[in-house]
Amino acid sequence: MIKKLLIANRGEIAVRIIRACREMGIESVAVFSEADREALHVQLADEAYCIGPTSSKDSYLNVTNIISVAKLTSSDAIHPGYGFLAENADFAELCRECNITFVGPSPEAITKMGTKDIARETMREAGVPIVPGSTGIINDIDEALELVETIHYPVIIKATAGGGGKGIRVAKNEQELIKGITITQQEALTAFGNSGVYIEKYIEDFRHVEIQILADTYGNTVHLGERDCSIQRRLQKLLEETPSPALDGEIREEMGNAAVKAAKAVAYSGAGTVEFIYDYRNRQFYFMEMNTRIQVEHPVTEMVTGIDLIKEQIKVASGEKLSVNQQDVTFTGWAIECRINAENPEKNFLPSAGKIKMYLPPGGFGVRVDSAAYPGYTIPPYYDSMIAKVIAYGNSREEAISRMKRALSEFVVEGVHTTIPFHLKLLEHEKFVEGSFNTKFLELYDVMRSI
Amino acid sequence: MIKKLLIANRGEIAVRIIRACREMGIESVAVFSEADREALHVQLADEAYCIGPTSSKDSYLNVTNIISVAKLTSSDAIHPGYGFLAENADFAELCRECNITFVGPSPEAITKMGTKDIARETMREAGVPIVPGSTGIINDIDEALELVETIHYPVIIKATAGGGGKGIRVAKNEQELIKGITITQQEALTAFGNSGVYIEKYIEDFRHVEIQILADTYGNTVHLGERDCSIQRRLQKLLEETPSPALDGEIREEMGNAAVKAAKAVAYSGAGTVEFIYDYRNRQFYFMEMNTRIQVEHPVTEMVTGIDLIKEQIKVASGEKLSVNQQDVTFTGWAIECRINAENPEKNFLPSAGKIKMYLPPGGFGVRVDSAAYPGYTIPPYYDSMIAKVIAYGNSREEAISRMKRALSEFVVEGVHTTIPFHLKLLEHEKFVEGSFNTKFLELYDVMRSI
Repeated sequence: MIKKLLIANRGEIAVRIIRACREMGIESVAVFSEADREALHVQLADEAYCIGPTSSKDSYLNVTNIISVAKLTSSDAIHPGYGFLAENADFAELCRECNITFVGPSPEAITKMGTKDIARETMREAGVPIVPGSTGIINDIDEALELVETIHYPVIIKATAGGGGKGIRVAKNEQELIKGITITQQEALTAFGNSGVYIEKYIEDFRHVEIQILADTYGNTVHLGERDCSIQRRLQKLLEETPSPALDGEIREEMGNAAVKAAKAVAYSGAGTVEFIYDYRNRQFYFMEMNTRIQVEHPVTEMVTGIDLIKEQIKVASGEKLSVNQQDVTFTGWAIECRINAENPEKNFLPSAGKIKMYLPPGGFGVRVDSAAYPGYTIPPYYDSMIAKVIAYGNSREEAISRMKRALSEFVVEGVHTTIPFHLKLLEHEKFVEGSFNTKFLELYDVMRSI
Repeated sequence: MIKKLLIANRGEIAVRIIRACREMGIESVAVFSEADREALHVQLADEAYCIGPTSSKDSYLNVTNIISVAKLTSSDAIHPGYGFLAENADFAELCRECNITFVGPSPEAITKMGTKDIARETMREAGVPIVPGSTGIINDIDEALELVETIHYPVIIKATAGGGGKGIRVAKNEQELIKGITITQQEALTAFGNSGVYIEKYIEDFRHVEIQILADTYGNTVHLGERDCSIQRRLQKLLEETPSPALDGEIREEMGNAAVKAAKAVAYSGAGTVEFIYDYRNRQFYFMEMNTRIQVEHPVTEMVTGIDLIKEQIKVASGEKLSVNQQDVTFTGWAIECRINAENPEKNFLPSAGKIKMYLPPGGFGVRVDSAAYPGYTIPPYYDSMIAKVIAYGNSREEAISRMKRALSEFVVEGVHTTIPFHLKLLEHEKFVEGSFNTKFLELYDVMRSI
């Protein structure tokens, strides 16, 4: 078993991992940039080391310094959290070479899933539904035009090295397609050093539904149900829930099985998420991508399954077998997560860094808060604006919603703007309450102006 | 359904009830003493009214003012919480006369259970095991001496109107018995205005195990499993857990059935707790008393059953039928509650009122905090010293303990002393970890001095 774990991250996910370490009797080592000297993860860890100046590039992405601290402290493992180095296959490979356990899948699995056209082909071969489109990279315009005769407009052009909403362009006709391919290729070359693009049928109205996976290094893979993450703003998730109000038992089982197939196709180990486009009108789902790491929204799955995903990650990385098989996994109740950002929802979500003068997180039955904030903490402007995740659990969706509204209404954060008022409006919105929404929800409705 | 609820209490239980109201769409009315003007329950409720000066007698026990506020605000119900008026049959009767719903059982049920010798007789008739002893009040010393020939020393002398550890005396021989009866009668007359005493066999080594009951006004009664509250200091519970490490399935079922019988014997409605003396050496349990109200430790039951006890109380009081029957009640995992008091465990638990300068409750998976504290809050010295309840949930007792240790280790309360260091020691104590302890645990072991 891992004895000492270095957490190569900051904020709430660093705190989350330190908590798991403490509960498992594992020593924790925090690392921090100069801007994070007063951060909660630094205070909670058993040891903490500065790894560089404010800029992420020089600190949380500073591979040399992070490995040095691991060696210096005799840490036998590194947990990358999410973001930063979490999906960096080279870093995972370097850990392996340095004889440090990387808490995550193999570099090979990261690479296969991180390269979009390869992932797509791997899924196709494994029998996981993919959006109709090109087989691998588009070599020239003629190939694209020929393909569109089969799949029809609108189509979407994607840079194979893209991600997070970058390197994506929709084409509704021949003119847009020709122009789009050229521009996307040029942009991708500049941004990612790889000009490869591929084409897929563009599904306009869909829900983002993803499946949580757990796998060990002995070939055991289970899924822990879905999360509906359709409430997004500019491709950033704002609210996630499980189960999805849009899924029935049949689709849920098919999607879960598909996700297990996807993970097995790359010999996945650890915790991972297979994201799907769910075309709810046609009851069809398609592989979108696999996140080869823990996700921000993992707590909702923990609430309904009772399984501690960070502990499972650590156990699998330590060489243990999964403690559950698929039949053991049961789902009870409903869980919703709201991401609370230090942003002003009245001013187009303008980031609002600064000092938190007063801070009192909500409590009571069915309410969980994952946060690295505290009274007097100064939110640095350099990193992610998320300051807390509030998770509400209930016996039904209705109860989870009413509990979330109660929790957010008592959440005190003074000194900075937060997205709490946005979430309170969202939770009252008729379409949200009905559960009838897709990823365009926030384009269609001005939630802050709704009654 | 109740539309507007007055909460005749303060502190964390007032906050707990306000939270349930908010989730149910019920308006909440807080009342407060002059010392509680800045209290959290005052800030969280929809409305709040001062009902008198600092002294409990003049405020939280001021029946006239409380009923007046209920009438003034058109509240259709009053929730008494625990303590104060919660087990006051006259108050429940007054509410009935004023056409205000009392969220609790009938005055008749409160009276029957509140008068110890009557409760004992009622249980005997209902077939609930009682400790061998006198039938009703002891009329004279001779009657006592005769009884002891059957049940043998040691015996315990109890004032029928006593409670909370007051009006109780152990006798190991004839001399102590004669003296004990006389003194207890005198004391009881002074303290409770009722000199009646009765005698029971004294069971020296036992665990305090209690059963949570839920009943509606249609005769449906279910039990929600047990809580082990054996960790006590001077009869004050400090830590509670469910399930009990001392019960097996057979005893659990018998005890649950006995508790349901007890509740039915007094036509109980609402939430209540039947407390048992569990003589674990002989696998025998005996009725101790029934608390005809919500209890401090109710959250551990909520964590393992998923049932919101405050909501159930309100629904039953509104005339609804129970939403669960016995077969629907399932138990998952393990939950522990630590009562965090503003007391100095290094100085014999000396109360430590004053201003909380820094306050950050623990968070994350499986951790629940019920509290009325906040940064800058001044704990008044006039009431209960409990400032927070921390509840940890895990898949096993081991996980719940490790999670509680993690939670308490990150709980920041500066400005006053708290019992957090005591609890951290307790959770490390070999006998506690083994689960082998009885109500004398804190007499036997000096936890603060243990390694």
